[in-house]
Amino acid sequence: MSSLLKYKHLLSDVKELEIISMGEGTTPLVRSKHIGPALGMDHLYFKLESLNPTGSYKDRFAALAISGLLHRQASFCLATSSGNTGASLAAYAALAGMPCHIVVVDGAPPGKLAQMQAYGAKLWMVKEFGIDEKVTTEVFTGLQNLAASYAMPVQISAFRYSPFGMQGVQTIAYEIAEELSQIQHVFVPAGGGGLTLAVARGFAVWNRGNNTFIHPKVHCVQPEGNNTIAGALRTGEHRARSIKSSTTRISGLQVPSVIDGDEVIAACRKHGGNGFLVSDAEVQSLQKQLAREEGIFCEPAAAVALAGCINAVQNNECKSDEAVVCLITGHGFKDQKAGEKLVEDNPLRHIADLKELNKSFHEAY
Amino acid sequence: MSSLLKYKHLLSDVKELEIISMGEGTTPLVRSKHIGPALGMDHLYFKLESLNPTGSYKDRFAALAISGLLHRQASFCLATSSGNTGASLAAYAALAGMPCHIVVVDGAPPGKLAQMQAYGAKLWMVKEFGIDEKVTTEVFTGLQNLAASYAMPVQISAFRYSPFGMQGVQTIAYEIAEELSQIQHVFVPAGGGGLTLAVARGFAVWNRGNNTFIHPKVHCVQPEGNNTIAGALRTGEHRARSIKSSTTRISGLQVPSVIDGDEVIAACRKHGGNGFLVSDAEVQSLQKQLAREEGIFCEPAAAVALAGCINAVQNNECKSDEAVVCLITGHGFKDQKAGEKLVEDNPLRHIADLKELNKSFHEAY
Repeated sequence: MSSLLKYKHLLSDVKELEIISMGEGTTPLVRSKHIGPALGMDHLYFKLESLNPTGSYKDRFAALAISGLLHRQASFCLATSSGNTGASLAAYAALAGMPCHIVVVDGAPPGKLAQMQAYGAKLWMVKEFGIDEKVTTEVFTGLQNLAASYAMPVQISAFRYSPFGMQGVQTIAYEIAEELSQIQHVFVPAGGGGLTLAVARGFAVWNRGNNTFIHPKVHCVQPEGNNTIAGALRTGEHRARSIKSSTTRISGLQVPSVIDGDEVIAACRKHGGNGFLVSDAEVQSLQKQLAREEGIFCEPAAAVALAGCINAVQNNECKSDEAVVCLITGHGFKDQKAGEKLVEDNPLRHIADLKELNKSFHEAY
Repeated sequence: MSSLLKYKHLLSDVKELEIISMGEGTTPLVRSKHIGPALGMDHLYFKLESLNPTGSYKDRFAALAISGLLHRQASFCLATSSGNTGASLAAYAALAGMPCHIVVVDGAPPGKLAQMQAYGAKLWMVKEFGIDEKVTTEVFTGLQNLAASYAMPVQISAFRYSPFGMQGVQTIAYEIAEELSQIQHVFVPAGGGGLTLAVARGFAVWNRGNNTFIHPKVHCVQPEGNNTIAGALRTGEHRARSIKSSTTRISGLQVPSVIDGDEVIAACRKHGGNGFLVSDAEVQSLQKQLAREEGIFCEPAAAVALAGCINAVQNNECKSDEAVVCLITGHGFKDQKAGEKLVEDNPLRHIADLKELNKSFHEAY
């Protein structure tokens, strides 16, 4: 069942709303069989947001955002995206029969763009958008002005710009809380921080309705090359800081501007959550490990949470008997170029008949 | 919850089995918003098997097959695949910590191969396997002999070769029957016919346990270029017929040999199911229509069921007030080359700033 329909009573301003649904949410929470035990952790879980209809958690946002636009009789959806948000909005707009225009970040992976195009969305790529902080801010402002001239909002998956749709993402926390009554840590990858904030807010809402539920520590994990929130959270500051340009290669987490950062710091800190910085190399290696040892083929951004978790375990900030969830935010299919790196050491063998295979088996087994 | 765990009581020989699970099954059944109504059908549903962990229904097979191998303490998984079976087995073998060797059909889409390689499976491509009927039969026999020398089965997603794993696929029928108590037609794409047979057998099992449930008509849909079962089913014959070579371009449905074909004909016919033949062009066009009008990005094979359904409606073999399910067997990500065709008419526009976008909006809205 769609998570948005299931938890409709925990969402605001949706009473009159007909929710356009494709079965988003209600994703599996699977227990680690190899990576957790190798770290001495018996209760490491992966939340497979990659199994949403378009392959990422953004479907929880898009389903609500597009439903809201339909309710307002909008004649278009106007949005920005580095890939996943756009694919989600494009799919739900297609379902709603609504034209969808997406301004995409410069250098977004072609596979992510192709997915949006397949759903029929019109794509516009602005030079340096999502790379240069000044251009990024200008585009956000320009699009808001354009949308405002139609009395409509721009869809950007951040609380600062699209709080209505973002509450759909809070359902991730509701699902985790319902399935694991005791949960100590949740590690969340962050670009602008919207997902982290949604998870923290979701647990806070759940906590208010269920007195026995203890709010877990929600941790914000960022690549070192996009340290806008995690460093400030760790060193006790109250404000996130923008950077001139993002140097991480991890698609989806290249967000040099401060968007939901200040609120992320406050919401995480309130319940003991911390910031973690991880290298692109660690992330790439863990992306491969997830595929090879857990059967989870995810996009690089999805391995960021696990990288943060491993740092926490190594620093004793997370104990081995505690229950920990890492969010797997998107599917490996999403970023083919990153996927190609996973297979470099495992080539396909062309054979004319089964002789070589037989020989190899009799040597190995 | 994993569908295999949920319906374990309806599976055979699994009592002692620990099922290796990643949340396979329990996929959404969504009602068509545009394609169905345009055909005058109010109750057309799509079963999104594309939302399984590796992106296709084969995860229901692989979860059970690998669990069975683990139970038998197998030291390897040996399999054949045109893409989806291999990805599923590779993922579940990774989860089980078991080496996995897959003999892939000649010309399988690189994206599907890359997925198997990402999970660490060893791939062997045999020239003409899956294209030429003689080579295909020789490879099947050779692999069975190799596996038999270790007292192990080869994993091929067909009842003829791997009946144990295939019963996992029957859970598709259990889910549909549980969600829709009245269902008149189910359209299933077929290569070798294993999926069609699993669905028909699943409804038969459900029907035995639930007297009020009426067995739907299960229809077998094939591309014209791989007419091994559908034509024979339609013309009243009892035997499927092998073809010299498959001429369809639809990945996953190129199966020139008769595998489960005879049993498919009997099982479909018993409850009024029929055979349908569709062209590659129809399928390609419907793949695009599913993305643009329903927000469902699927692989070409997944659009085959819908093509069969449309033929049935046009022939009055399916009435507009009946409840119909089309299986969406795999995700669009799976076959990138096919996906590229979907976007040819919808190019990305590169812009330096928002001027052109603003102009375009003020003209359109």
